This record gives sequence, structure tokens and C-alpha cells, in this order.
Amino acid sequence: MATVDMIEYEEASPEVRQVYDDIMATRKVDWINNFWKVLAVQPELLRRTWEGVKEVMAPGAIDAVTKEMIYVAVSVTNGCEYCINSHTAGARKKGMSEEMLSELMAVIGMANQTNALANGFQIEVDEDFRRGGLG
Amino acid sequence: MATVDMIEYEEASPEVRQVYDDIMATRKVDWINNFWKVLAVQPELLRRTWEGVKEVMAPGAIDAVTKEMIYVAVSVTNGCEYCINSHTAGARKKGMSEEMLSELMAVIGMANQTNALANGFQIEVDEDFRRGGLG
Amino acid sequence: MATVDMIEYEEASPEVRQVYDDIMATRKVDWINNFWKVLAVQPELLRRTWEGVKEVMAPGAIDAVTKEMIYVAVSVTNGCEYCINSHTAGARKKGMSEEMLSELMAVIGMANQTNALANGFQIEVDEDFRRGGLG
Amino acid sequence: MATVDMIEYEEASPEVRQVYDDIMATRKVDWINNFWKVLAVQPELLRRTWEGVKEVMAPGAIDAVTKEMIYVAVSVTNGCEYCINSHTAGARKKGMSEEMLSELMAVIGMANQTNALANGFQIEVDEDFRRGGLG
Amino acid sequence: MATVDMIEYEEASPEVRQVYDDIMATRKVDWINNFWKVLAVQPELLRRTWEGVKEVMAPGAIDAVTKEMIYVAVSVTNGCEYCINSHTAGARKKGMSEEMLSELMAVIGMANQTNALANGFQIEVDEDFRRGGLG
Amino acid sequence: MATVDMIEYEEASPEVRQVYDDIMATRKVDWINNFWKVLAVQPELLRRTWEGVKEVMAPGAIDAVTKEMIYVAVSVTNGCEYCINSHTAGARKKGMSEEMLSELMAVIGMANQTNALANGFQIEVDEDFRRGGLG
Repeated sequence: MATVDMIEYEEASPEVRQVYDDIMATRKVDWINNFWKVLAVQPELLRRTWEGVKEVMAPGAIDAVTKEMIYVAVSVTNGCEYCINSHTAGARKKGMSEEMLSELMAVIGMANQTNALANGFQIEVDEDFRRGGLG
Repeated sequence: MATVDMIEYEEASPEVRQVYDDIMATRKVDWINNFWKVLAVQPELLRRTWEGVKEVMAPGAIDAVTKEMIYVAVSVTNGCEYCINSHTAGARKKGMSEEMLSELMAVIGMANQTNALANGFQIEVDEDFRRGGLG
Repeated sequence: MATVDMIEYEEASPEVRQVYDDIMATRKVDWINNFWKVLAVQPELLRRTWEGVKEVMAPGAIDAVTKEMIYVAVSVTNGCEYCINSHTAGARKKGMSEEMLSELMAVIGMANQTNALANGFQIEVDEDFRRGGLG
Repeated sequence: MATVDMIEYEEASPEVRQVYDDIMATRKVDWINNFWKVLAVQPELLRRTWEGVKEVMAPGAIDAVTKEMIYVAVSVTNGCEYCINSHTAGARKKGMSEEMLSELMAVIGMANQTNALANGFQIEVDEDFRRGGLG
Repeated sequence: MATVDMIEYEEASPEVRQVYDDIMATRKVDWINNFWKVLAVQPELLRRTWEGVKEVMAPGAIDAVTKEMIYVAVSVTNGCEYCINSHTAGARKKGMSEEMLSELMAVIGMANQTNALANGFQIEVDEDFRRGGLG
Repeated sequence: MATVDMIEYEEASPEVRQVYDDIMATRKVDWINNFWKVLAVQPELLRRTWEGVKEVMAPGAIDAVTKEMIYVAVSVTNGCEYCINSHTAGARKKGMSEEMLSELMAVIGMANQTNALANGFQIEVDEDFRRGGLG
């Protein structure tokens, strides 16, 4: 249960409604999920976060379903229940198959394992990898 | 500096060399990076980890560059210096452009922010998102 | 549900009761929350943890409500449900307004985002920031 | 070493320079720190992140030095070297005394300890704390 | 509720049943826990993960109950509810007493606290500790 | 480089020297490591932390080397460079063999992987594991 009261569309200020309307139009849905109804307790936080998410998640050099899977990878690593559920749903809606979900989880699991091994043994970065392999 | 001594190819046992050879053949490189030279202190750990990585990172329902970007997303969230550098290099080698790298970071940053907001306000998962949107 | 049985005041040993009494007196409440009833399974762990919390959370150079908000920031970043709820309650009791709560969450969210960006791009610490700006 | 090339003021596009100028004017400094010079590889990421930080860190219901200390708390919990150094510097500049720094660290340390205990024993949230003590 | 449908023994393919049989035989139990029933959505992921767990958790230079306690330490630090519950159960089954559980939690709590202090003050590794004290 | 100045034995107050003397006597060493020299900036923080560590790390129901390995497991999962190095050194000094170190890392790696899988698929805790298998 959220630590603040959620703001429903009916009781929202015009400023908040404008954001809600944009969320529904952008996502082609007719309801607002809890995340935004909670952020609406501070309209500026709602607006800024929505605008950021909208810009960042729009397809660009990386396509929309890949962006959702990356979002899931971060959310799993942080153990965020809300975000794992919402972005797994988002990824499925944008085309992630069940096979892709399993592979996504396999990669996330393997990365968490080798991250621990690299940290655990305090392995030094190879010169060739420095700067992420930038020439 | 690693907490154990790394095992160079020249001094490696036949069992370890076999894994080193497979790594170089699979990745089409002529050198072994520090990660594997450290794991080689326990040949079983080396073999098991390499076989896992090889299976998981092979292109399947998700392509190779996307898998590398997912690996980066986990590594950034865990703050693993070795893995961020090595998998950014891996992703670039497999085709990640500079524009894709920036978008990847933007998604990772945004996900870490909204994970914190969802946790911070203790937002409840919407029924429609439960089970990751599974019908 | 806790992985051990909680110790209620009525069944507590004199040693545990003494800590319970001090908790209620210090916090001006007439009940003991689950956290302490669980730690009481090992009286030394209960005593040491309570004494630490009591010392650390007493107002000093930093006031009590700010200390609670810092506690919330850590708990959100770790995703600790118990601690987010209990310390949000503690901060409210000590004077945190709803506006402050929203700003707190906005700062926590932003910090998690820029932490990820700094790690993700492996940004080097500026000389002027080294040692936290110590002259 | 950052995984991308940093953009210096002299070589920056007008769009990037405008952000750099605003950073220096807002912070009353005459140099740009590495964080922004890296984000500038994607001007939109630079602009969006700077505007977010500027809005969020401006004094409001919570004062500027407290916001910096909250930022430090998150950065320590995430283990972000860049952010710990830069925001410790920022907090000092805005008035954090050495005594406050020690108390800040003591609270962060204690919170990380009790977060682990609450998770470790799987302690249930007390009804009175649910919703962060919201009546 | 898992984001995928679990695979029960009765409906499992021969490949999956073989792993289920090996789990029950190795652990001397007559049921399969949810973790494996979920991984079975991708038989390769199930097989690979089970084989890894089986190899790693077998008593070797470190005994079985100590390995379970180490597993708990990681799971607590990551805040993984499933894993804390399952591996606390596993450790108890293999001989962890209630006194050991309390000491385990005390060590985990203290480690999380001093990790935060070491990161928070950005303390440099002593030369004598470099390489984990390797001579 | 630490964000505060370290306090050497020669310049320490009697209160701090007393703690330093106890650390050296308890650990049978003739030098003080950086961790304590930094905490000494706030004598209360130094004293409280040392007393906690001393109590918690003393052999009890769990032996000393196992406690050090648990400490390493937490430190690796948090990615704390200082703590990984110092507690790997501590574990070696108390009897951890190279074979034990490799097995420790293998368990830590596996636990981080399965934690991610359990979180990622949002797997529900089995009734039999609830309360950590407490009857």
C-alpha cells in the first residue's frame, strides 16, 4: 500500500489531468496505472518523470521492445517488484515472446553471477577493454 | 589487483588450456582476458562459467548485441567496473553504435530512478500488470 | 512472516524487558514494534542494535527529522520494505511534511539515476572533488 | 576513464554550451565537471538530466545542504565513487560541517545494518507503520 | 505470483522430468519447489541452473551448512525474499541452529554497516590487505 | 583517498588510542588499518563500531573463519573494494585455503544468479519454505 494517497483522474487538478491525458494518448490505453497516481501528489515530479520516461522510451537507435527489456534487467537487479511486473507487461505488449523472456532472464542471471565473480576476485580491467573497447 | 594469481596459457593445465582454446575460437580472438585467467584457479569454476556464458550469450530469440546491452544494464546497476568495461567493449564489437550506447545509458538511468520512486512510495502493483501482464 | 518467533513483552526475560522499556521510554510509545521483537531472539543483538540506533539517531549536528529522511534514502535504495514504512512513519512523526516527503523522493530518484549514469559511463572523479572537496 | 570521449567547452555545439553556461551560472563556478562533459555526447541526455537536477536540488521544503546529504546517502548505498566524492564536496560547499559528515555516515551505516536485519529475518511491517504511518 | 506459468511434474516433458527426478533424488525430498517449476519454461535454463547449483552446493573444502549460510548472506544483501526463505530453510535442514542463525544475521548486519562506512568515507585499501592479504 | 584526514596513533587522543590499543591486542597485530584511522574522526563512531565488530566476529556458534567468509559474501554482493580485500585477507589469516576461497566465490556467484532469477520471474515462496522452514 503506497505511503501516500493516490490521485484519481476525477479528483485531479487540470495540471495533473493534462499529464494523465498525455500518458493515455501516448500509450493508447484508457486507464492510469498506480505509479503515476502516486507521483501526482507532487505535480512537478509527475510531469518531469513522465516527460523523461516518454523521451527515453521512445524508439530511437534502440527499438521499443529492447528498451523495455533493458528496463526489466535493471528492475530485476534492483529487486523492484512494481517495476519488474509493469515492464515485463510492457515488454510483452511491445512484442517480447515467451522465448525472449526466458533468454532475458538467463542473461540477467548470468550477468549477476559474473559481476559477483569479477568483484569477488577483484579482477583488473584488461587494457583492451578500458574505455569500453573504445579504440 | 586480483586476490589470486592469474593462470597464463603457457602454465595452464591441459584442462584449462582446452577452455582457453574454446574461448579464443568462439570469440575469434587470440588472447584470454583476465576474468578467465582468474577463474582458472579452480578449473571446474572456469569450465562451468564459460559453458554457461557461451550458451546464454549465443544469439537466439534475442540477438547478440541486445544480449550484450542487457549485460551492461545489469553491470551498471551493480556498479561492476570490470563488467561495465568488458561488456561495453563486447557490445561495441557486436555492433552497438555510439548513439545506441547513449540511449542504453539513458534507459538504465531512468529505470534506476523510477525503481527508486516505486520502492520509495511503496506503490502497489496494478492488477493488470500482475504476472507481467500475462493474460 | 519472520523466519523466527517474536518475543512478546510478557514472555520476555528481564534482560530483554529492560531494552523494551528503554525503547518505549525513549520513543514515548507504549508498544514495541516487530523489529525489536525479532532481534530479541538473541538478547545481545537486541541490546547492541538498540544502543547503536539510540546513539546514532539522537539529534546532534544533524537534527532528528533529517536523520530519519537519510534513513529513508538508504532504505529506498536497498528496497527494504520494512524500513521504508517504519522510517517514513518515523520521519512524519518527527515533522516531515507531505511536501518534504515528495522532495525527498525526488532527490532519491535523481540520485539513483545519476549514480547509474556515472557508473555506466565510468566517469572519472574530477581532481576538485577528490576527497569530497577537502581543500 | 570514461567509456566515451568528453566534450570540452571549446569544442561544444551551441546547444551544449548553453547548458554548460547555465550550469556555471547556477552553481557560481567557472568550470564544468566531468559528469556533464560525458553526458554531452548526447545533448538531449545532457539537457534533460541537468534540468532535472537543477529543479530537484533547488531549496524547497527541504534545504540545499540536506538535499546534498540525502544524495550522499543514496550514492554511498550504491557504492558510486564519482557521486560520493562530488556530492560530499557539494554538501561541504553548502555548509556541511565535519561533525555533520560523521553523523551522516553513522546514520547511513546504521541504516544499512538494520535494513539487512529486517530483510534477513523477513520481519513483517507493523500495522501502525503501514503506509508510512499515514493515519 | 510468477510472471510465467509453472510446469508441474505431471505435465512436464521427459527432459524436464529427468531434472525434477534428479532434484528430488539429490535432495531426498518428494516434491519440487516453485523455483524449478518456473525455470522449466526453458528446459535448458532449468538444466544448466540445476547442474550449477548441484555442483556448487555439494560439500567440498567448505561444508554444506556453511555454503547455505553464505547463500543466505548474499540473498539478504540482495533483499531476495524467495531466496532468504528457501536458503534459511535449507540451512536449518542441514544443521544450522537458532543460535547460528542469529549470529549469521549479526555478521550480515555488521558487514552491511561497515561496507557503507568504507564506501562512504572512500577509505583506501591498506597495502597489507591488497590482493586479499596474498603474500 | 578518504574524504577525511586519517588519525595516526601518534596524534590520537587518549580515547582513540585506547580503542587502537584494543584493536591491536585483540587482533595480535602492531598496526592500525585505514578503516579505523578514518572512523577516528568521530571517536564515538570508532568506539561503537569497533565494539560491535569485536562482539560479532568473536567465535561463537559460528567459527571465526566462517564469519570472515560470510563477511566476504556480503562485501562482494555490495561491491565494496575495501571490505573484499580486508576480509579476504582476514579469512586467509584465520585459515581459509585457496580451495575454500574458490568455493566461496562459486557459491556467491551462484547465489547472485539465482537471486536474480527468483526476482526476475517473481517466484512465490513455497509454503514449506515460509518462515525459513520453521515447523
